[in-house]
Amino acid sequence: MALIDHIKRCNAFDPSRYLPFTIAGHPIGAVTRDFAAKLAAFPEVFVTEGAAVRLRDELATPEARTAAVEDVLEHMREAGSAPKKKGELYRVVEHWGDGPLMLIDRAAVPVFGIRAFGVHLNGFVRRNGAIRLWIAQRAADRVIEPGKLDNMVAGGQPAGLDLRENLIKESAEEAGIASDMAQKAVPVGVLGYCMDSEWGLKPDTLFVYDLEVPADFTPRNTDGEVSAFRLMEASDILDLLRNGQSFKFNVPLVLIDFFIRHGLLSPDTEPQYLDLVRGVRAGL
Amino acid sequence: MALIDHIKRCNAFDPSRYLPFTIAGHPIGAVTRDFAAKLAAFPEVFVTEGAAVRLRDELATPEARTAAVEDVLEHMREAGSAPKKKGELYRVVEHWGDGPLMLIDRAAVPVFGIRAFGVHLNGFVRRNGAIRLWIAQRAADRVIEPGKLDNMVAGGQPAGLDLRENLIKESAEEAGIASDMAQKAVPVGVLGYCMDSEWGLKPDTLFVYDLEVPADFTPRNTDGEVSAFRLMEASDILDLLRNGQSFKFNVPLVLIDFFIRHGLLSPDTEPQYLDLVRGVRAGL
Repeated sequence: MALIDHIKRCNAFDPSRYLPFTIAGHPIGAVTRDFAAKLAAFPEVFVTEGAAVRLRDELATPEARTAAVEDVLEHMREAGSAPKKKGELYRVVEHWGDGPLMLIDRAAVPVFGIRAFGVHLNGFVRRNGAIRLWIAQRAADRVIEPGKLDNMVAGGQPAGLDLRENLIKESAEEAGIASDMAQKAVPVGVLGYCMDSEWGLKPDTLFVYDLEVPADFTPRNTDGEVSAFRLMEASDILDLLRNGQSFKFNVPLVLIDFFIRHGLLSPDTEPQYLDLVRGVRAGL
Repeated sequence: MALIDHIKRCNAFDPSRYLPFTIAGHPIGAVTRDFAAKLAAFPEVFVTEGAAVRLRDELATPEARTAAVEDVLEHMREAGSAPKKKGELYRVVEHWGDGPLMLIDRAAVPVFGIRAFGVHLNGFVRRNGAIRLWIAQRAADRVIEPGKLDNMVAGGQPAGLDLRENLIKESAEEAGIASDMAQKAVPVGVLGYCMDSEWGLKPDTLFVYDLEVPADFTPRNTDGEVSAFRLMEASDILDLLRNGQSFKFNVPLVLIDFFIRHGLLSPDTEPQYLDLVRGVRAGL
């Protein structure tokens, strides 16, 4: 498996499956043709017209939209045609930084093909010039990719927190990192991808942070999402990436970007260097 | 001036000015309509057909193409319709890493809208957690942007060297950096842009390197291209970038990318953070 194959996997989708979904004229997502047909049962909330789906313009405020869509989702969950509620609200925006057009339960985000945002933290140690990274193993009871390897810390971006606040919260939950240590994490860029998923289209934006941790620090999970942590040589991680799918599907993008930024891949010897640089941000 | 304006300046071009230019079926450049008309005087080398220009397929080897195009350029230089020869050969490729379709004098690269490659080196020092960068001032006799501020080291990528070899050569010439110090430069990614220029289209790919230099190191120019070096606080450089065009036109891209990678811009406070991350690679 070439490094570029991880990027291809995160950017595989079939546009013909989807109809655009808009709110108040903003293109903010996409729904499968099947799901659009189901939304036709709720004409007081959704309008399908000209091969596109929109929220009814009469729903003119974020609060009204949030309530109306949640009401529809609740009906659909009972019929098994929408995913089980996660109880965490995401902001629905056309562009990061915009005020939200509405809020929506995290599980329903791919159902409407809404762009999700998240934070990923590379935890690393330097020794004799070599870099080692703290790699998490996802708990066996995770719905998504149980048992796969993961970044030291990663999490979706809920409504009501800024990125740094979310990073501090996730760092405490996932790796037992104290707030003053998490404050030292350095924002180092943004990655993006877009793929077909079980419930629909998944366009994702990952805000990436690096944190060099002390040699005597060991991450310790507190929320049950991680079963173990291992401190791995960068070269061993690269070997794993080149030889299969040990990592959760989107984590290779974060690691490839880390390897590029830290000079662990060379443009003189990595034939697909330029494709990798472009590829980790293909879905931004 | 917003940071994003530097990126817009490097990505301003009018596609309607140009016709595509191909060699052996490879799209490798673009020529202005005016220049295409002048090439019509050399039908044994160039063919204009269907709003596109191509090198004659009978010129089947890199050597034959290089000689034929240089012969045409020599005639055009005498007539003042091609730029003065620089005496440095660039490789002409569709994709970085391909074998060259031909070589061409550096000055003629924008005339044919051929993608150029180069290396840029951020030289920096850390003190009490703050980062300072070594900034060059271009000599007053430079043809391009005399007197403007520049990276510690930067240079085009000539035929016959790999990137690291070129970086070592340029580091010695521009900043008096010994080979063993230049070897420590870390490749950290690639940037790209595409703009209208005096002679035609300029698509450019910049391989970026970071080098943390010792506190007692001072760069010293040896080839006359730099008139002075200054060690500047990152925050002062950011202020300069936000307040005008003190830097050579493409250097802000390298600096903005440096600020992003080193956490000197925050996604929580820089409203155009995502546009900047995308923008510095817009032309890749």
